Amino acid sequence: MAKEKKLVEQITSMEVDFAKWYTDVVKNAGLIDYTSVKGCMVIKPAGYALWENIQKELDRRFKETGVENVYLPMFIPESLLQKEKDHVEGFAPEVAWVTHGGLQPLQERLCVRPTSETLFCDFYKNEIQSYRDLPKVYNQWCSVVRWEKETRPFLRSREFLWQEGHTAHATEEEAEERTVQMLNVYADFCEEELAIPVIRGKKTDKEKFAGANSTYTIEALMHDGKALQSGTSHNFGDGFAQAFGIQFLDRDNQLKYVHQTSWGVSTRIIGAIIMVHGDDSGLVLPPRIAPVQVMVVPIRQDAEGVMEAAEKLTASISAVARAGIDRTDKSPGYKFAEAEIRGIPLRVEIGPKDAEQGKCVLVRRDTREKREVSLETAAAEVEKELQKMQAEMFERAKKHRDSHIFDAHNMDELKDIAENHPGFIRGMWCGETACEEKIKEELAVTSRCEPFHDKEQIAQTCVCCGKPAKKLIYWGKAY
Amino acid sequence: MAKEKKLVEQITSMEVDFAKWYTDVVKNAGLIDYTSVKGCMVIKPAGYALWENIQKELDRRFKETGVENVYLPMFIPESLLQKEKDHVEGFAPEVAWVTHGGLQPLQERLCVRPTSETLFCDFYKNEIQSYRDLPKVYNQWCSVVRWEKETRPFLRSREFLWQEGHTAHATEEEAEERTVQMLNVYADFCEEELAIPVIRGKKTDKEKFAGANSTYTIEALMHDGKALQSGTSHNFGDGFAQAFGIQFLDRDNQLKYVHQTSWGVSTRIIGAIIMVHGDDSGLVLPPRIAPVQVMVVPIRQDAEGVMEAAEKLTASISAVARAGIDRTDKSPGYKFAEAEIRGIPLRVEIGPKDAEQGKCVLVRRDTREKREVSLETAAAEVEKELQKMQAEMFERAKKHRDSHIFDAHNMDELKDIAENHPGFIRGMWCGETACEEKIKEELAVTSRCEPFHDKEQIAQTCVCCGKPAKKLIYWGKAY
Repeated sequence: MAKEKKLVEQITSMEVDFAKWYTDVVKNAGLIDYTSVKGCMVIKPAGYALWENIQKELDRRFKETGVENVYLPMFIPESLLQKEKDHVEGFAPEVAWVTHGGLQPLQERLCVRPTSETLFCDFYKNEIQSYRDLPKVYNQWCSVVRWEKETRPFLRSREFLWQEGHTAHATEEEAEERTVQMLNVYADFCEEELAIPVIRGKKTDKEKFAGANSTYTIEALMHDGKALQSGTSHNFGDGFAQAFGIQFLDRDNQLKYVHQTSWGVSTRIIGAIIMVHGDDSGLVLPPRIAPVQVMVVPIRQDAEGVMEAAEKLTASISAVARAGIDRTDKSPGYKFAEAEIRGIPLRVEIGPKDAEQGKCVLVRRDTREKREVSLETAAAEVEKELQKMQAEMFERAKKHRDSHIFDAHNMDELKDIAENHPGFIRGMWCGETACEEKIKEELAVTSRCEPFHDKEQIAQTCVCCGKPAKKLIYWGKAY
Repeated sequence: MAKEKKLVEQITSMEVDFAKWYTDVVKNAGLIDYTSVKGCMVIKPAGYALWENIQKELDRRFKETGVENVYLPMFIPESLLQKEKDHVEGFAPEVAWVTHGGLQPLQERLCVRPTSETLFCDFYKNEIQSYRDLPKVYNQWCSVVRWEKETRPFLRSREFLWQEGHTAHATEEEAEERTVQMLNVYADFCEEELAIPVIRGKKTDKEKFAGANSTYTIEALMHDGKALQSGTSHNFGDGFAQAFGIQFLDRDNQLKYVHQTSWGVSTRIIGAIIMVHGDDSGLVLPPRIAPVQVMVVPIRQDAEGVMEAAEKLTASISAVARAGIDRTDKSPGYKFAEAEIRGIPLRVEIGPKDAEQGKCVLVRRDTREKREVSLETAAAEVEKELQKMQAEMFERAKKHRDSHIFDAHNMDELKDIAENHPGFIRGMWCGETACEEKIKEELAVTSRCEPFHDKEQIAQTCVCCGKPAKKLIYWGKAY
């Protein structure tokens, strides 16, 4: 019993300390472990299985739009990184440098890729000669390194896993279309698979990617009212092409520079799943992405007919869902707590009486609703319940998000909301970086994006300086 | 027409120069490209799709045996690498060292993983306390770095992709069982999916992995008579566990060291596919692993009914195979050559007369056999033909391999075979490393393995020193 008590006590309440709650959940749900390598984590089986499902579904959606996968080197020679001025300024301060190969010092040091624009440019320079070679729509799944000072599991790690798409196009229009298309792929994926509603929008110049003409983002709202940037796509115009000399002979026999984009989603998104859906008992996984969707828990395994009925039930459920059965000799209470911590969407309990009467009990992880169903209809009921749960988790998250969007018309209101009402803040902006910087410095609030689908003019003047406003911005504290 | 001629001429005949043939195929089949990063390659869409199929099928086979996937950091602190003496001696001379993070020098330098035994040990040390925590059967898909001086695409590259399984067990027997089990998974995979027959066996002490008690290997024979080590598994006993202090409390209340294994297959295996099945026209892919199994080539696309029939045919074939259609405006001859270079198992030709008469022509990549089939039965015929081709490719490779195994009873015979009869050489061995070294030095022949399934005693004495022989060894020149 000592051990069972421990299991429940391991998670700090999110009301008490949200940051502590987060790391408790990450650790106790078996998603990660810390390592001797400072700032790097081990992604454990439960965490990696989640990432595998994310990969599989995103990859499927990419390929439907014509994306092909490739793999480029993990090292970037220093001279290559330096070719595009803004890009090197953005990344050089946070890369890891390889200076020795074997026992010899290298003639030129290499950084471990923080992102691969420069490598793709070097590659495309050789691959692209004619309009016939375009477009190139390539992606790679890999790990990247950014030498962060403060790290947190999934949210900010010195090494993390991601995909990075890099495309080259004949025209500006086509590049822009692809940039927006991939952002929408990300947004649809988040909403449909992860049950996370997102704001789609454009980053300000200050917040855009190093070297990009424009950056688009999806922003999600966490339980604590902070925003998490969950995916981005960038239109580079022909800036990189000019720096690297990537030209093609067009149909009109003119030599032209290609237009490029890149877009990425990382293991950071696992942090969003945790902070949008989790509760004080642990992880809550949306059914569509959960590695194990249903856990059958036999109660009084020694009693006649229980294990037999439980195994049969698990087999029938396995036809419609990713199901497991807990055969360990732990107490039912402990098994329940374990399935809850791990976020398994549905628990199915079956004891001696149930087996005798030909029924079982479905328990939902999110609402804890329980209902009895017959063993004959259990598989069909499980299938329905998982779909219902997926839809309801999205609606709940959306309701939470929508009830945490506040309007500010001036700095006083902005300050009050920032201090007392965690969430997104809608506020008009004049377009000057100085105002963004002032808001960030004074209130620790950053511009999240200029939303695609919300063009309401809630005031005539900038929330900061009072000069004529140009656009509506969603502001917020962010991870 | 100039371009078409070029396509055919791009590949050197393997009789003329096998090494050149290999790199020509790799490059012209669109598998890789060279990069500005010395010794590292770009794996292009055709190459990566092949790796994706290999991953998918191996991963499925792993999971059937209870393997779970994880992800560990790519960096190893120097002090961690040094904990196991043999291991560090084996790898330290060929690792890449990170010495700076951002603008600061690191307090301790980190190597980019050449393999992850030390990281898994560091991880398992925390994860394993009791016999209840065992076994751990984890695997990761990742890239590793070894600072090779001479590199060749897929065969030897400074960075390469692989999977590395790392397991921990309560007993010696269980570890040994897992080591052999995974070697058999590799061997079955090679034979069933890649149509590559392999010799399963044990490495000599000289050839085993740095830190292992024993190393098992699968060895395949290439077209040129050289061997390629295509997968290995290692039993570490409790050597690493002692070095890292990985102990568990057993059922008998005794504190014991775990027994560990590791096993890996890398992108090197793509080199084996090329060199076992390829020919002077390019790549030849076994149907089961080919990203595109069937290419439909419409002839005279402008003629009435051709494209319509070709599209309909492609749709029907897509129900049974991974099929594509070549809609480009290139000439049929050029399309044929392209499909051949890329190694697509089956080509389906359909021209105006075929469309009119309701038929098409299947052309096999390996034998170039052509046969007419009706459009109604085409899908079924394609399915049958792909199965037949897979089986025949294996039989052909096996016949080639078996006809290139020669027996040597003394150094003169060994020398004659090594110089004039490329292939595996069977020769008895006394067990002394000195003999292995002499053979390697004088004849550039290494011991490939002591085979599991061939225990014939072809002589009483060692092929090298003439002293009493202990075991039969397969020798050969190797990649």
